[in-house]
Parts: sequence; structure tokens; C-alpha cells
Amino acid sequence: MNRHVPLRGIIGYTLTPFRTDGKVDLDKLQTLTGRMVDSGVHAIAPLGSTGCLPYLDDEEREAVAEATVKAVGGRVPVMVGVSSLTTERTLHHARFAERVGADAVMIIPMSYWKLTEEEIFRHFDTVARAISLPIMAYNNPATGGLDMTPEFLARLLEIPNVTMVKESTGDVGRMHRLRQVAGEEVAFFNGSNPLALAAFAAGARGWCTAAAHLIPELTLELYRQVVEKANLVEARKVFQQQLPLLQFIVKGGLPRTVSAGLELLGTEVGPLRAPLLPLPKPEVDALRRILGEASSHPM
Amino acid sequence: MNRHVPLRGIIGYTLTPFRTDGKVDLDKLQTLTGRMVDSGVHAIAPLGSTGCLPYLDDEEREAVAEATVKAVGGRVPVMVGVSSLTTERTLHHARFAERVGADAVMIIPMSYWKLTEEEIFRHFDTVARAISLPIMAYNNPATGGLDMTPEFLARLLEIPNVTMVKESTGDVGRMHRLRQVAGEEVAFFNGSNPLALAAFAAGARGWCTAAAHLIPELTLELYRQVVEKANLVEARKVFQQQLPLLQFIVKGGLPRTVSAGLELLGTEVGPLRAPLLPLPKPEVDALRRILGEASSHPM
Amino acid sequence: MNRHVPLRGIIGYTLTPFRTDGKVDLDKLQTLTGRMVDSGVHAIAPLGSTGCLPYLDDEEREAVAEATVKAVGGRVPVMVGVSSLTTERTLHHARFAERVGADAVMIIPMSYWKLTEEEIFRHFDTVARAISLPIMAYNNPATGGLDMTPEFLARLLEIPNVTMVKESTGDVGRMHRLRQVAGEEVAFFNGSNPLALAAFAAGARGWCTAAAHLIPELTLELYRQVVEKANLVEARKVFQQQLPLLQFIVKGGLPRTVSAGLELLGTEVGPLRAPLLPLPKPEVDALRRILGEASSHPM
Amino acid sequence: MNRHVPLRGIIGYTLTPFRTDGKVDLDKLQTLTGRMVDSGVHAIAPLGSTGCLPYLDDEEREAVAEATVKAVGGRVPVMVGVSSLTTERTLHHARFAERVGADAVMIIPMSYWKLTEEEIFRHFDTVARAISLPIMAYNNPATGGLDMTPEFLARLLEIPNVTMVKESTGDVGRMHRLRQVAGEEVAFFNGSNPLALAAFAAGARGWCTAAAHLIPELTLELYRQVVEKANLVEARKVFQQQLPLLQFIVKGGLPRTVSAGLELLGTEVGPLRAPLLPLPKPEVDALRRILGEASSHPM
Repeated sequence: MNRHVPLRGIIGYTLTPFRTDGKVDLDKLQTLTGRMVDSGVHAIAPLGSTGCLPYLDDEEREAVAEATVKAVGGRVPVMVGVSSLTTERTLHHARFAERVGADAVMIIPMSYWKLTEEEIFRHFDTVARAISLPIMAYNNPATGGLDMTPEFLARLLEIPNVTMVKESTGDVGRMHRLRQVAGEEVAFFNGSNPLALAAFAAGARGWCTAAAHLIPELTLELYRQVVEKANLVEARKVFQQQLPLLQFIVKGGLPRTVSAGLELLGTEVGPLRAPLLPLPKPEVDALRRILGEASSHPM
Repeated sequence: MNRHVPLRGIIGYTLTPFRTDGKVDLDKLQTLTGRMVDSGVHAIAPLGSTGCLPYLDDEEREAVAEATVKAVGGRVPVMVGVSSLTTERTLHHARFAERVGADAVMIIPMSYWKLTEEEIFRHFDTVARAISLPIMAYNNPATGGLDMTPEFLARLLEIPNVTMVKESTGDVGRMHRLRQVAGEEVAFFNGSNPLALAAFAAGARGWCTAAAHLIPELTLELYRQVVEKANLVEARKVFQQQLPLLQFIVKGGLPRTVSAGLELLGTEVGPLRAPLLPLPKPEVDALRRILGEASSHPM
Repeated sequence: MNRHVPLRGIIGYTLTPFRTDGKVDLDKLQTLTGRMVDSGVHAIAPLGSTGCLPYLDDEEREAVAEATVKAVGGRVPVMVGVSSLTTERTLHHARFAERVGADAVMIIPMSYWKLTEEEIFRHFDTVARAISLPIMAYNNPATGGLDMTPEFLARLLEIPNVTMVKESTGDVGRMHRLRQVAGEEVAFFNGSNPLALAAFAAGARGWCTAAAHLIPELTLELYRQVVEKANLVEARKVFQQQLPLLQFIVKGGLPRTVSAGLELLGTEVGPLRAPLLPLPKPEVDALRRILGEASSHPM
Repeated sequence: MNRHVPLRGIIGYTLTPFRTDGKVDLDKLQTLTGRMVDSGVHAIAPLGSTGCLPYLDDEEREAVAEATVKAVGGRVPVMVGVSSLTTERTLHHARFAERVGADAVMIIPMSYWKLTEEEIFRHFDTVARAISLPIMAYNNPATGGLDMTPEFLARLLEIPNVTMVKESTGDVGRMHRLRQVAGEEVAFFNGSNPLALAAFAAGARGWCTAAAHLIPELTLELYRQVVEKANLVEARKVFQQQLPLLQFIVKGGLPRTVSAGLELLGTEVGPLRAPLLPLPKPEVDALRRILGEASSHPM
């Protein structure tokens, strides 16, 4: 049976940088992606929330997927976000990702109208049948507007190539519940940054995080301490060290805060796409302080 | 000063019908629109939530806007929904609506990322400066994912051609609060069907409703009793008569329930666009009963 | 059949004043009560939320009930709050109220543990069987911690002497829903101050309010305009005039704000019972301004 | 400085049993308490939520506190719940607990009226000044109706003998946040049963649980695996084994489910106090199955 789970550890979510003329900056995207791979993360995930997926048009999405796969060059797995409001567009982008060499795709069901479970199931099932890549079902009601219960996620996992779940509700109880209903071997990943330690303790295979743009070494160290060494005392120490940054990027919104953080670290990443605005100055100052304290070297 | 408010009364929101090949059925759209005008509603609003705006591509949206203006033929005002996640696309559709002869446009700020008030304000301001049509600011956190307070809506109303507010939170207190902060003459409209009577009592200029597809005469009668005749006893009677239908279409989702209702009334409107599925059979049966009781004639 | 509904109009909720030694000030209570009757309200309700019921011991509760009935002297009906966490104590106070001559009792089911519907039903049923007074079932999840649906309230109303409902969720849709499930003749009362106009438009028999301590004439005028004259234009005007005060007393908590308001109007009512503290100074200043504007005469 | 923290590990919360005549059954209480101590728990906590504290009168509370201290006989620490709506009654019971030999007291701020932070602070401060025992500040908005932020809890911890926090919101992020604002050495305890593993991973000193009545060995084994052995793999195994029971007792309410569980295990504990009713039969059957599976021996 084909329960392929190509991911584990720190899955780095990449920002989509823009040029000053408003177009996607593919060169900068490849630089950022390459640098993140160099930092040691275990996988790369373009076109997620951090990548501003829903604000890009079809051509831009395809270009980002293709450029990312090239920049990674097979060094680590690439999981491409292919979500769209309609099933037809989701399917289109899933096929495109497969064609350009992605290792997995991620799908978050998105709402304008609240979807019924039957609608969400058919949405996944239709896309899953059209590709052979493994699919990560992504639950994040705060952005996608739809909430999938552990029981429903277990049902989705019965689709042969839906092999992974990403949980971003911030409720670690959901993860334990998922193990209860889908079996102890279920491959679930954490998408809620401030829950990183608790999720690994609960058995998460990996942590999907844009923090890998700013503090890759701390995210990797947490993984090492809690998963590889089972050293909870050290794990708590390294987690508390990065927690203010994790809280900050969640509270301020990933594109705004990660862009600002990258610029503080010396990399210009261009404007955000309207209506998104750059992080306000007082918050940039707060971020500078938090980033300095997390990395323990002056900025 | 240019505080043009071209709408009042029952503003009928039109469904976007599809053909069996998945394409938008413009002929059917014009038939439905013409019939709604004939029923006596005071205005027509294509490309709202009922019109499945976010599930249509750019060309489809333009075609629906243009076909609606033609079908209405100037008999009543037309307000076109022009919302999009990005400011650039919203602006594009607002200009298009103006060019084809719409009387107003409606904009709901939409989230994937939660927008700050500053971001929402600039979004509206940028679009408003590019057109001369009056704009209705639409607040509906349940679909758009963003909530605008009465205080913030009052700020939006300071933009010269943002002249109307549509409130769909279901909290009549918001309407009274809006009057407090934006002045007693503020032009607000109700978008929460089960709140129709309370909203008119609170001074709403109109009721934005897809129920006009199914029970136009009852929606009009409510307006007459509460606004024109100030007869609360009769208003309550006619409101309670239509309340089960209003509750039903809100609970089941407007596109699903209004499609099913139109078919029960004898008009085929084709499939919904995936991932949306048709109303399940038991709910269609419930709708048949509710519709029969509301209209007081057997179906 | 015995569906006695002894109340309508403005039901004034009285504060329980304390002496500086922490004891209940029964003389002051009688003065305040008598003055409220003189102001023209249609009924008096001691030992509600405003009366700090849950903070009083059994003897205090009995003394307040008895003193109120005496002070009113039969001029208007008196409804006594008799709620308690346990059924046994609720029953005790209900019997006491009946014995001292109350016209009705009010019961809010209270939670530490969330009660099941069966538990709430038996709670009401047990008390109802032990007295012959009409009972008002009071729904206010914000204070009592339990929410009763319209469907469940309709079930409670099948108990012969549970003849009235007080709805304080702030959702006027609940009132329309109650009419749907309990019949158009259901006697419901509004307990959410900022919903006063909407509730009367929905058919509420009365408005339960502590605002009668501060602006009795405005609350009475709203009743006259919307219920007796069906003049929505005037009703909106008088409602908007008192709305800032209604919002203020709800937001700041009734005992704190009503105490402060009474002192601003010249009546010392003593300290609150700890842990409740007096309204902070800046809020007292805000209240002075709001009260001055509502009553249109300088304070 | 006096930052005495007398508790750690599994803190067993005891049920208050009643006789068929409705009176508290002190003999049974002492039997249950003694048995829980024998099972190996690290501390005993009467008069918590499980002990139905708010449903008892003053004399009953005093009797339970005294009987518990005697039954424990100094073998493990005893923490007595002394909460009350009023500051005066809380203080009374805190003093009583100290007099009869308790090792600590627990206080949950309780709402009918929502308290301000200033009111809650003074409530704790007044009681803390009157006793010399260490105090656990208990945060559980679901039962007490008030929510205390980590920032506010850190402020409470500045009161010399408020030395412990019990967090029951179910959000492990609160615990990490508390460490951030109150220092890594803060003594916090988990009160949310389904969060037991995550809380220990986050550094909780102990787990406050009524599950110790039904599955003491499993709760103790979790503590050993996660805290003493830092074996997350085994910890997850033993946690998932008891999770269905933890979920069940939380969902059904502790007094109802723990009573039913004790009876299934062979100990009659009498009726609950009205309005609380016994666990319905179908749920008792579910509990029998869950309890059997958790303990891996037939019942």
C-alpha cells in the first residue's frame, strides 16, 4: 500500500518576494530558497500562507512552483501549496506541481461559503485521484475559514494518497485525538508555531514553519532536543528562547513579519502585495529586539 | 457634497446559474434577473455571495456584470459586487462595473490574512479614488473573514463615494451603534435575513436579500408594513410567516438553497460550481414544505 | 388554564444598597424602591443581577424580598429573584417570596457545572410544583453561565406556572425564534438593554432594566413610542438618546455603574460588596457626561 | 523569602459523597480519601470542582476540610479549596483550612458579575494577607466564569504566599507564556485532563486530576515516564491509553462521571446534589467500556 510520507523535521515555508513593480521576484525567491536549504531544514514548502498563495494569479503560482523545485535541486523534498477556492483550479495546480517535480502537495480547503464535510471530502478526493503525489491535508480555520475535526481528517486519510495532516488550530488535544481516531502511526505535522514543543511531545513528525527564514538553527535545535535526544529540559530552554519570535510572527501575520525580519537580517525582499502593507515601524523595532534576543547576538 | 445613495427597499441578490458543462449560463441569468425586476424589487445586485462571486474568474465576472445591466435595462438601480482578495483586481472590476453602466458597487474586504484596519482603509480608498460610483462597504465576517466595527465603518464613510454600509453580522446593536458614530442619517442596509424586521425598526434603508428569488412578495410586504405603514403588528405577522425560509437559506448556504428553491418553483438553474454540491435530498424536502407554508399555496 | 402573566412594560430592577459596615441597607432599599415606583415603572424586581443576588446570604435575601414588597405596597407588581445554585435553596426562596406577597418569581439557572437540559428542566419543575406564583425563566449565559435555546425555553413554558421568559443573550433572533416555537402569544421580556427597541419591535411584553434607576422617563417614553404609539421614528430618536447610557451600564457592570449613577444623581447608596469595587474615577467622569447628555440637563 | 510550593506530581481531587438523605457522607469521604492516598498520589485536594464546592453550605465545607485532613493524617500534603463569590466567605474558609491543618489552599475567582483585574487582585490579596498558607491561584473560565491571563497571573504571583498557579484553559500556550512572564521557575500545575502530557512537557510541576479516583496507576505512570524518565515514547503510549477516560470525564462533568465510575468500580457514593443528576444509563455503559479498556482488565 502506498502511504508515502516524504516529510519530517523542520519544513521551511518560503516567502514569495515581490519586485518594486509588483511582479513576483523569482530570482530573489531562488536565493531565499537556496539559503534556507543551506541552513539545514529538512524540506521546503513554497506557496503556503507565508508564500501569499491566495494573492497570486495562476501564472505566478506556476512560476513559483517551478523556480522552487529548480532552486532546491533535489537536496530536500519540496511540498507545493496548490489550494484554490474551486476544485478545478486546485486540480490544475496539483497536476502542475507533479509535472514540475514536486515531492508532495499541500491543500487547505478554503471558504467563502462554508463547505460541508461531503463537499470537502469530494474536493480532496477529486484532486487525489488526478495525481500520484502524496497530499498533506491542511487544517487552519483562522486563514482558510473551515475547520476539519480529527474524525473528519481520519476519513480524509483513507484516500490512498492523502497521507499527511497539518494541524494549525493551536489545540494540541486535536493531535492526540487524531492519533486516537486515525491510529498511532498517523503522520501529522504542526503548523501552529507557539505549539512546536507540545506538538513534538505529542508525536508530530514535523513542524511547518516560516520561522526557518529567520532562526533556522533554533527551530532545528528544538527538533534535535525533543525528538532525537528526548531531552525535555534542554528542549524547553531552546523553545522558550525562540517563543517570543514565534508569538510575534503569528500575531503580526507571517508575510508582514517575515519580510520585515528578512530585511532586518540584511535581505531586501520588496513590498507586499496590496492590500497587505509593510509591518509598521514600532513593530519593526520590537521585532529587531526580539530577533536580537533570540539569536543572542546584537543586530 | 456627493453623498449619493441610489438604493433603498428590497435589494434582490441574484444567483449565478451554470450550464451543465460548467460554464456560466448568461441567458438564464438574464431571465432570472428580468423576472426579479418584474416582481417589484427596488434594486438588483449581481455578484454577491449568492452570485458565487469568489468562485468565478475575471472574464465570468465581467460577463455577469454586463449581462445584468442589460437585462435590467435601467428599470431599477444595479449594484455590482466587485470584491477580490487583492486591491488591484478589486479596482479592475470596479472600473469595469462603472464602464458597463452599474449604479453602485459593493465591496467586502476578504481575508486569507487578517487585514489591519489601515490595510482595509487603503483598500477601499484606492478603489474609491479610481471610480465615481457610490460604494457600499459590506461587513460580513462569516463569509469574508474580516470584521469591521461600527467605528471603523464610520471612518470608511468619510471617503466621499463610500456612501453605504451593509451589515451582516446579525447583531442589530451594530446598526444602532453605527447611527451613534456616523450620524442618524447614515445609509445602512441589512444583509442578515433573520434580522430583517429588527433592522428596519432600527432605521435600515434597505434589505439585501436573495430571498427575493423565492418569496419576493413577502419581502416587499415586510418593507411596506414596517417602513411605509409603521404597522408593527402586521409587520411581525408577515415577518414570522417568512422567517422559516429566511432561517433555512441562511443555515444551508444561499447558493445551495436558492438553487434548490428555484428548481422547486419550476426553474432549472443548473449545477453549482465544485466544491459546492447541490442541497441534499432531505433538505430539499424540508425546503419544499417551508416554501409551501410561506407562500400559502400548495407546491 | 392558568397562564397568568402579571407583568408588562418597564420592569425596574433595584440595586441592593449596603451600609458602610457591609450590611444590607434596608431603609435605603425602600427609599430607592419607592422612588422607582413613583417614577412610573410598571413593575419592580428586587434580587436580580443588579440587586447582587448571588452575593447575599439567605437572611439578607429574605429581608430584601420582604422589605421590597412592603415598600411597593401593591401599587405595581413585584417579581422577586429566587435563583440559587442548588434546587433546594431556590425552592426555599421561591416559597419565601410567595409567603411575603410577591406577584411572581424569576429564576436563572446558574452554573458552576454546566447543567444538562434535563437537569435545568427538573430544577424549574421542582420549584414550580412547590409554589403557585407565575415564574419567569431567565436566560443570561453571560452571568449565569448556562444558555437555554428557544426550543428548550418553549419546553419550560409547558410547566403550568412557568409563564414568562426573559431573554438576555442580546440576539433578537432568539425572540423571533421563541415566537416560532412557543407560539405568537408567548410572553417574553427583554433583558438586554441595548436591544430594547429591537425587542419591542419583535413583540416583547416588557423590558427588564436597571436603567429605571437613572433614566426612568426615557425608558418609559421608549415603551410609549414603540408599543403604544407604534411611532418608529420617535422611538428611534428616544432610543438613540438613551443608548450611550445603556451601553455604559452593560459594559461596566450594573451594580458598579448604577451605584455610581445614583450617587451622581444625589443619592448615596454605600459601598459594593467585595470583591466588587466602586466604578473607577475616569469612568465616573464618563458616566457623568453620558447621564448629562441623556437627560439633557446639566449635572 | 517564602515561596513555599508544597505540591508536585499527581494531585488527586476528591469527590464529596452524599447520603441518600442528601447530607454529606463524611465516612465515605474519608474512605475514598484514604484509598486515594494508598494508591500513591502525591497530594489530596478536597473541595475543588469535583468536590462540588459551590453546592455545599458553610458547615458542610468545614466538615469536609476537617475530615479530609484527618483521613490523610499527614501522609501527603492536603490542599483545600476555599473559593466563594464573596471575599469575606473566601477569607473565612481560608482561615478555617489553616486552622485544621491544611498545607495549602486553592482559590478560583468566581463570577456572577465579571470581575475586573483589580477586583480579582484585591480578592486574592485580602485573603493572602490573612493566612500564612501557600495559595494556588486557579484559572478555569469554563467553571468559574473568569479568565486570568498569564500576565495577570504573574502579577498575582507577586503576592508573597500566592506561590502556585493551576491552569485549566486547555491551552498549553498559556503555560509557556506564564514561564515567559513569571520566570522559568514558576510553579504551575495543569488542571485540564486532556492536556496532561503536553503540560508536563511544558514543565508543569503537577497534574490536578479527579482521574486519580478511577485510574490512579495510569496517572502516576504518565508522571513517571514524562517527568522522571523523560521517555516520550512510553509517555505517549500511557497517555493515549488513558485519554478516552480523560475526555469522557471532562465532557460529562466530573461529579457525574466520577461518581458513576466509582460505582462501576464497586464503591457506592450516593446521589449528587440537585440540580445535578446521575450520569444517564447510555453514558454509564460507555464509561464501563472506556474504563475497562483503560485498565486492561474486564469489568
